[in-house]
Parts: sequence; structure tokens; C-alpha cells
Amino acid sequence: MPSFTWKAKLKSELDWKAVLFDIFLFFRPDSYKDRDSLFEISQNPLPLRLLNLNPIAMNRKHNFGAGPGILPESALQKAAADILNFNNSGMGVLEISHRSKDFEAVLQKAKSLVKELLNVPDTHEVLFVQGGASTQFAMVPMNLLKKKAAYVDEGAWSNKAIKEAKLFGEVAVVASSKDKNYSYMPKGYDIPGDCDYLHITSNETIHGTQIKTFPASPIPLICDMSSDIFSRPVDVSKFDLIYAGAQKNMGPSGAVLVIIKKDIVGKHGKVLPTMLDYKTHLDNDSLYNTPPVFGILVCMYVLEWLKELGGVAAMEKINRQKFDLFYSEVDNNPMFTGTAAPEDRSPMNACFLLKDSSLDEEFLNAAKAAGIVGIKGHRSVGGFRASMYNALPLESVQALVKVMKEFAMKTA
Amino acid sequence: MPSFTWKAKLKSELDWKAVLFDIFLFFRPDSYKDRDSLFEISQNPLPLRLLNLNPIAMNRKHNFGAGPGILPESALQKAAADILNFNNSGMGVLEISHRSKDFEAVLQKAKSLVKELLNVPDTHEVLFVQGGASTQFAMVPMNLLKKKAAYVDEGAWSNKAIKEAKLFGEVAVVASSKDKNYSYMPKGYDIPGDCDYLHITSNETIHGTQIKTFPASPIPLICDMSSDIFSRPVDVSKFDLIYAGAQKNMGPSGAVLVIIKKDIVGKHGKVLPTMLDYKTHLDNDSLYNTPPVFGILVCMYVLEWLKELGGVAAMEKINRQKFDLFYSEVDNNPMFTGTAAPEDRSPMNACFLLKDSSLDEEFLNAAKAAGIVGIKGHRSVGGFRASMYNALPLESVQALVKVMKEFAMKTA
Repeated sequence: MPSFTWKAKLKSELDWKAVLFDIFLFFRPDSYKDRDSLFEISQNPLPLRLLNLNPIAMNRKHNFGAGPGILPESALQKAAADILNFNNSGMGVLEISHRSKDFEAVLQKAKSLVKELLNVPDTHEVLFVQGGASTQFAMVPMNLLKKKAAYVDEGAWSNKAIKEAKLFGEVAVVASSKDKNYSYMPKGYDIPGDCDYLHITSNETIHGTQIKTFPASPIPLICDMSSDIFSRPVDVSKFDLIYAGAQKNMGPSGAVLVIIKKDIVGKHGKVLPTMLDYKTHLDNDSLYNTPPVFGILVCMYVLEWLKELGGVAAMEKINRQKFDLFYSEVDNNPMFTGTAAPEDRSPMNACFLLKDSSLDEEFLNAAKAAGIVGIKGHRSVGGFRASMYNALPLESVQALVKVMKEFAMKTA
Repeated sequence: MPSFTWKAKLKSELDWKAVLFDIFLFFRPDSYKDRDSLFEISQNPLPLRLLNLNPIAMNRKHNFGAGPGILPESALQKAAADILNFNNSGMGVLEISHRSKDFEAVLQKAKSLVKELLNVPDTHEVLFVQGGASTQFAMVPMNLLKKKAAYVDEGAWSNKAIKEAKLFGEVAVVASSKDKNYSYMPKGYDIPGDCDYLHITSNETIHGTQIKTFPASPIPLICDMSSDIFSRPVDVSKFDLIYAGAQKNMGPSGAVLVIIKKDIVGKHGKVLPTMLDYKTHLDNDSLYNTPPVFGILVCMYVLEWLKELGGVAAMEKINRQKFDLFYSEVDNNPMFTGTAAPEDRSPMNACFLLKDSSLDEEFLNAAKAAGIVGIKGHRSVGGFRASMYNALPLESVQALVKVMKEFAMKTA
């Protein structure tokens, strides 16, 4: 896609000549006869360049929100420009056919980036669907539950998946951490060989826990990776199905990523709504109907950013830095305490409390004054939660840690 | 929402002082101490103003695409700015919680605009869901088909709806225009009183036909209005359910509008996937799970644009102008012919042929040279199709008519 290369070039070179030209053009838009060259130089990068060079214009908050969450600035800038004019087509990306060459290139690029970044084996295919992980909670049992399925109960999201599966068959809850308010990840449980599959949730957004070692499952393994996909390397070959709502580490809400082992598709023998049959999306390469075009575009830019950064292994290191910095403060600051079992702490969502909860409001205000947003805990658990998704820069964690330190000093 | 007012003010006044200030700021970003006032003036409108004042930068095509189709430029500009910084929050709209006050305001505004523009009675509710009209093809029978449903066969989309309904019950096809390749809309058919509902498609995108007078139905009336909603006034009280994929007259693909009579919801007595039960979305005010946040935002801006323009009655007049201009050329130009029955011609999609189809390529090239895109007919019918959705300006139809006239003169 030539225009992407061209945009990247302009961005990397900080093309001052073009910027000056834009400003001249701005005052004298009709003064140039050569409209073709004028056109090329005056396209989307105009606002892009100005924004890139104007740090104050962005004034980004430290966004610790749990999702939809922070996305890489570069991806947002490209997406915003594309809404006005995509690939110099004279049409915005919301206005083009999903069967156009321009969008076909986006879809294939997004798919190939998923495959490359997660090292997806040829046995599996990448799909983009709609309806959020909530729709996957139903699609999984509708497509794969014949008699009985095994689920691990790790918190609110597992529970929604279990509730949905029970509509379509028998469910064996093989392990649960409900006994300690989901503050840890169940481990070492038996996986019954007579179940159709085992369903797990790799990261518990609300309680701040994460599976560090995936179980060796004798039956097909299904995983909801909505809140930690692309945050670390995973061996995709061990999973029959991975799904993830885009709105944490990937893109906007409304797009859902599915990585599915091809040979499990279409064997349900049931009457299913066409849109809820994985076979529909596999057979039609995610183009059975109009897909969420813009969502897939943003995913593509986010994954490009991730690739440039070094991929999921490099990302894991950065996430580790943020995790270490944050939790060393929680563990050493006398005013705070973490709620998740140390060995299961998630680098994506860190749940913590002020030991004296009467200071909650004051702490929130101090954080707010430092440009920190989104750290209020989920309404079902209270306290605080710092979500540190891929796009959250280390500087934001430094800012939060600084507020925690100052709060302890001031209040001590 | 104060910031919208403020943006509108800046746009309407063409605030030259602010523009000059931006340019100064661009060269000397650190020269101002008063960061608060700097912040206010340097927010989103920076690219917005520059783009507004730089006509060449936009260089919009005459976009006759059938969908996703053209959207109002003003809505795109606002949406693009919001991706970088929403409501001066320091976060883009893709990065905010769907449970935030900022998004709650968007959702309620979008809903209230739908209600106002279509005069939705209190008996009905407005929902935003996901999955495209294709998912509605299944949701309708899953929720409402008990024994038998009546469908009118008006073309490709009706057929998909019929195929889906047959998965869940008996279907009576009460009328069809297949006998003449769907070139007209079935009329005067009997509606069996023993069916659970009658399903119709108000506008046939592929064949360019539209229902001018909706049938008086003794049973609940369900209508797929994906390709002509908001193009004309409709009496919503006559319908039990209206659904429409956003990507023609409303917004980006991935968001779906549902207008449903409240007392038909939740009476199916079946086991349904939670996400495919209208009750879920009605009970949770479209916030059961993370909705397509960005899609709903764009819908809100498009509907604001429509309201400013005078609403659906004013829109119908403009659409009529475009329709008359285009079809008077088709009917009077000796080289062209329309394919839809004159009384059923759709103002949204006009299907036409060159009498000498060996000139098709040449005509397409002439159109392309005039900045016209998207007029190739659907692959299943060939020829040409000019989709003239709400956002397509009259100037674009004038440009197409000019090409048709010149083509006839040149070739004659």
C-alpha cells in the first residue's frame, strides 16, 4: 500500500518544506497551478504533521481505564486522517465499500499481522467478527458443545461464559477461585476427558489476575483473551479457539478477533443462525456481511505499531517494566495493598486498595490533578484498579507511582 | 455538551485570530506560559479549521457507492477530531469507557435524535446493537416466530432474511417479484392473518426499487430499512420492528439501529443466546456489553446534521431533487435506460444500463475522470447503479448527469 509508505516517510522526515508549503497554501489556496503535486502534498498529513509537531494540542491523559482503553497515539492519528481521506481516494474510510481493493488490503494486512505477531500455525485461521466477547460466550457452546463442557470459574467474565454455555448443554465447573473473591487463578485442577472442551479466561480484568501457565489440556482448549491478547507470547497451537474483544489491546469496541483451529469448524450438526456459525466467517474470509471496517483498520494500525516496537516479546518486557515499577510501589508504600495473589498478579490490570479507605476520594483527586484517569476499581469490588494495557506508556506508570509516593509522604 | 457548542462557534466564525495563533504556536510551541488558555485554543479545531479552510486537502469524490456509502463531511470532521481528543478529555473517543458520562451523553443524544427525527411513539424504544442487518435476519425469527411468518420476496436481501427465518419456523412467501428479476415491488398481496408477522424490505439496494406505500398489515409488521432509513418520513407506529444497518444513511458499518415496539419483547418463550434476545438490549438500554462506541458517535453526528438540515421531510425534498434530476436524464438520454419499474424507482439506488453495453468501460472511465466513483452495478445484475444516499450532494448528481450528457453527445 504505497500511501502508507509515503505517510510514514513524511512523518519520519518531519518534512519542514511541506509544512511551510501547507501554511502558504492555507493563505493562498488558489495560487498553485500544478494541482496534482499540490494534491499529493496537501493530503492527510497536513493535520497529522501539525498535530505531531504540536505536543500541547494532544495533551494526553494518563489513561488507566479498563476498557475501552488507551490506544497508541500513532494509530489514532492515522485512523483520524483516514476518516477524512483514505489512501488519497477522496473518500473517508467509513465511506468505502468493504469489497473494495483498499479495504481488502486492510483486512489481509490485519490478518497477516495477527498471524505474524502470534506465530499462528497453518492449522488455524484468523477471523474478525462482531458482537463483542459476549457474543462469543454463546458462539463457543453453540458451535462446540455437544454434551458437556468444562469451564474454569475465574470471575465475572467466566461466569457470563458459563451462564451462556448452560443454555446449550451441560457445564462442569472444574475449578473456581470464588472462595477467595477471585483473588487468585485456579491451578492444578483435573480436566475431565469426557468434556467437549475446556474454557478458560486468560486474564481477569475486574480482579486483576492472570494465568501465567496455561493448563496442558487433553481436550480442546478455548480461551477468552480479551484483556491480555498481544501482551505476551502465547503458543497458539495449544488452543483450539482464542477470542478477544478488540477494545483493550487491539482497537475500538465492536470488532472481535477469533483465532480458530480450522478442523473444529462446522462439525456441530445443529441449526445455527448463519452469523453465529464460525463456518460462515471462515468460508467467507470474514466478509460474509459488511464487517466493522473502521474497527479492523484501527486494529491494523495498532498491530503495525506493535510490530515496529518489536512484537509481543518486546511488549512483554515493557509490560514487565510497568508491572515491576507499579507493584514495587504497592508492596513498599505503607498506605497501599494489592488484592491479587502475588503469583497471579496481572500486568494488564492491577487492583489495589488504600489501607484507610476513608482517604479514597482524596487519593483519586490527587491522581486526577496529575492527569491520571480511570483508576477507580470496578463497581463490584471497589478500591482502585490501574489498567496498564500495551499502549499505556511507562511514563504514565511513573506518574501514578509519583502520586502514590507523594500521597504517602503528605498523609504520613 | 458544551464543547460541541464551542466547536460549532469556532467553525461558524472562521476564527482567524485563533488560526494565526495556531500557526505561531506551531513554530513556537513552548512560548506561552498560560497553558490553560493555550490548551483551549489549540484543541481539536486545529486540524478542523485548517481542513475546513483548505478545500484542496479534502478533494472529495462524487461517491455513489452502495454502502458503506458517503457520509456528511461535517460529521466526519467531528468524528476524526474526536478520535484524537474527545470533549477535551485528553482521551480519544475510542479510549473512553462505554460507561463514562461522556459516552452516556452520546448514546442518549443519538437515541433522542432518532426518536425526534422519526417521531417515534412512546410505545417503541430505540436500540443500538451489533452484527449488521444479517444478524437481524436471525434475531427477528428467533424472537418473534412462533409457528409461521409471512415474508415478501423483493430481492437478494429479502431472500437472506427468508433463508434465515426458515431455520426457526415455517415461512410463507406471500409475494415475490422474482418473475421480473426483482425490477418492481410486489403490491396488493394478501397478508395471512394466521402468521406471526409480515416481513418486508423497504428499499432494494441491488435492484433499485422502493416501497412507496407500506401495506396495511393485520399482523405485526417488521421492516428492514437498512438502505433508506431517514430518507423520508415514515409512520413508525405502524411497525412493530424496524431495523437498519448504519452503513448507508446513518454511520459506519458495525452499528445497527433497531426501533422496537416494547410490548412484543421477551415473549418468545425460547432459549436464546443472551446477545440475540431483544430483551437484553431493551432492559440494559443498549449497554448490556460494550457497544460500538464510535459507530454510535458517528450516527449522532450524522443525525445532528440531518436535524440542522430540517429533518426527514426536508431530506425527502432534497432526495426528490436528486431523483428527478437523475431519472429525467436516464429517461431523456437516448443512450441509457432504467431497469426498475418507474413507479417503484428508489431515490436511494438508481439502476441503469447503457443500451449498448460494449460502451460500459468507456462510460465508467468518463465518469471516473469527472471524479465519480461507485457507479458500477452489483455483480449479480451488472450495468450501473447510482446510489444517492442522504449525504450525497446535489452537485454530485449534476456531475454525473453532465457526464451522461457529454457521453451521449460525444458518442452520437
